[in-house]
Amino acid sequence: MTTASDKIKQRLAQLRQRMEAKGIDAVLMTDPDNSSYVSGFRAISYSRPIVYIVQRDTTTYIVPDLEKDHAEQEAAADDFFIYHESAQYAERETSFTALFKGILEGRLKGFVVGLEMDLISASLYQLLKDNGHQIKDIGKDLIAMRAVKDDDELYWIEQAGRLSDIALEASFDHLSSGMSELEFDAYGDHKLLETVSVEFPNINAGFENWTCSGVERSSQPHLYSSTRKFRNNDVVVHSRQVWINQYRAENERTFLLGEPAVQQKQYLQLAIDAQKAAMKMVQPGVKAKDVDMAAFRVFEQAGMSDYVQHRTGHGLGLSEHEEPYLRFDNDLVLQEGMVYTIEPGIYVPNIGGFRHSDTVVVTKDGYRRVTHFPGELEDMMF
Amino acid sequence: MTTASDKIKQRLAQLRQRMEAKGIDAVLMTDPDNSSYVSGFRAISYSRPIVYIVQRDTTTYIVPDLEKDHAEQEAAADDFFIYHESAQYAERETSFTALFKGILEGRLKGFVVGLEMDLISASLYQLLKDNGHQIKDIGKDLIAMRAVKDDDELYWIEQAGRLSDIALEASFDHLSSGMSELEFDAYGDHKLLETVSVEFPNINAGFENWTCSGVERSSQPHLYSSTRKFRNNDVVVHSRQVWINQYRAENERTFLLGEPAVQQKQYLQLAIDAQKAAMKMVQPGVKAKDVDMAAFRVFEQAGMSDYVQHRTGHGLGLSEHEEPYLRFDNDLVLQEGMVYTIEPGIYVPNIGGFRHSDTVVVTKDGYRRVTHFPGELEDMMF
Repeated sequence: MTTASDKIKQRLAQLRQRMEAKGIDAVLMTDPDNSSYVSGFRAISYSRPIVYIVQRDTTTYIVPDLEKDHAEQEAAADDFFIYHESAQYAERETSFTALFKGILEGRLKGFVVGLEMDLISASLYQLLKDNGHQIKDIGKDLIAMRAVKDDDELYWIEQAGRLSDIALEASFDHLSSGMSELEFDAYGDHKLLETVSVEFPNINAGFENWTCSGVERSSQPHLYSSTRKFRNNDVVVHSRQVWINQYRAENERTFLLGEPAVQQKQYLQLAIDAQKAAMKMVQPGVKAKDVDMAAFRVFEQAGMSDYVQHRTGHGLGLSEHEEPYLRFDNDLVLQEGMVYTIEPGIYVPNIGGFRHSDTVVVTKDGYRRVTHFPGELEDMMF
Repeated sequence: MTTASDKIKQRLAQLRQRMEAKGIDAVLMTDPDNSSYVSGFRAISYSRPIVYIVQRDTTTYIVPDLEKDHAEQEAAADDFFIYHESAQYAERETSFTALFKGILEGRLKGFVVGLEMDLISASLYQLLKDNGHQIKDIGKDLIAMRAVKDDDELYWIEQAGRLSDIALEASFDHLSSGMSELEFDAYGDHKLLETVSVEFPNINAGFENWTCSGVERSSQPHLYSSTRKFRNNDVVVHSRQVWINQYRAENERTFLLGEPAVQQKQYLQLAIDAQKAAMKMVQPGVKAKDVDMAAFRVFEQAGMSDYVQHRTGHGLGLSEHEEPYLRFDNDLVLQEGMVYTIEPGIYVPNIGGFRHSDTVVVTKDGYRRVTHFPGELEDMMF
């Protein structure tokens, strides 16, 4: 067995308390973020299933042969079950499903099993049902555990935020009319990886970008970056997430090229004001809905609430979007150590989309931004 | 309703034939690749569920508000159901689950439903069970439909292949001892996006890379790129996938820096020979297992079969990995228009990992490579 770090031991202990409270004998996880959170092992799995099993007194990983060494090095697990896919091993387990069934009928026989019901596949769930297991949802417990970050997690989120600022600066330094959305992204990507490479030995990092330029594309909150070239008088929404050592920050800016229409300036100012109003609300004891409504009221007072298409923000950490969400109907009470994006937006047909996003940590008496790229209206006109 | 293209109409007709043969009244899809294949609409969904419903005589999309315009522009769907997440719409549907249940109990009442059982979540599946639906798996049908590519799909896969060659060339042109894995990737990324931007107006493109350098990291087939710096005498496995207009090609090279050990040269030559042997087998009528075994025998004859950790290749197209797989136990017969990676590898503790991957199309009488970056042993020594 890999020696689990204290952090992983604490997380396992916390999960087991929750299992006990719910009468769950074993938790089966397939989500890479959840299982890495509790085991310390993060694989690139793609088409090959990986299952992490936490029982009251033991832990087990089911991994494909090509993740065997990786898992054995990193995972807090007492046992590893390996499935193979080469003729060399034809007399051993070469079917994940057969191996998985064997474990269900063996060590997990008769157990009450906890699953991430929103994430595990219907086919694995049905295998458990066929084997007679009583199933309980453990998804919300994992969300609750992950929502409050410890100091180590916050350190990496801060680094991700700082690096995202550096990337944005590089993209904006190269900004010119006639460059494409993908080129704008690429300058930031390159600078980001160069910086990470110089500053951090032996660490993983990466990013995701979407840039939506022009009236039509910016009016849609989520589109992949394209080769559309920036034109004079474009509204552009640039979105970037950076991750380092698995932890993420989000940094988004809306900017205006050339001679924007009066309304475009007004609406961007409104999005900026809404973001500030929401951010000011962030502190322990406040409800998620209060943060959302602080932004909403800014739009409402300007008569623009019809153009609000999404909540004010989402949790952030290991996953691109994590619960809990800053939604008008969420009574969740914010706690110190939670991390959120604050990104109210409006999307106005024939005029454009307007949204900044910054990442904030809930502190003892308020919040701390981890992204600092300038975003006032005058900073956003080129 | 969006006017569906002829291609989408054909795919819908083909899916409906399969539904009829299986006695399925409605198919519910949540996988973004499957639903974009049949509907023409590809969203960035993250935490917000999107469901595409194909009935015998009508099609429906359930989308969040922020994808409404995007879906209405691109999707072949007769109806759109929208769920909202802003206080403005608090009197309308603001819960995906409530909306979804309403549809199940309404227009789908009593229907036999086809699901992608390996992909849909346990919680949605259970909602269908609770509503009394008989469920059948439609996943294999969607895989079979997607496996054989049409000319338009092949065009984009060819472009992805060509662009991946350009990216590899840029990374190798900048190769130097002391640069990090992430920097090596970044040169290719930048050149790739620049090239795409110049050549293709208004198109989406992207990439994924992993570079594993040194004996320890290269011995593990799948690790995220890190800031580890290349050292003299390293073995490095560089993996790149490029996608353009949603279609992918894969291009991987193992290379040797400085003065490699005799065994490192031998094993890389072996991986090259195994790849050539597998590629030569590719033609219509041959079985998937024959391709896998052609590579395996090269390793076996050299006494190295213990170090084979994975199958010879996977299908490629919309997804990073698609079925069917080139595995020793797969009796699937190859057909013209299928697309595969050919990537046999060995991973030898204390010596390194050795794998090239190229993407090939099955043609009328053999195969055509879509990736052409040089890969002979002498090309791979720096």
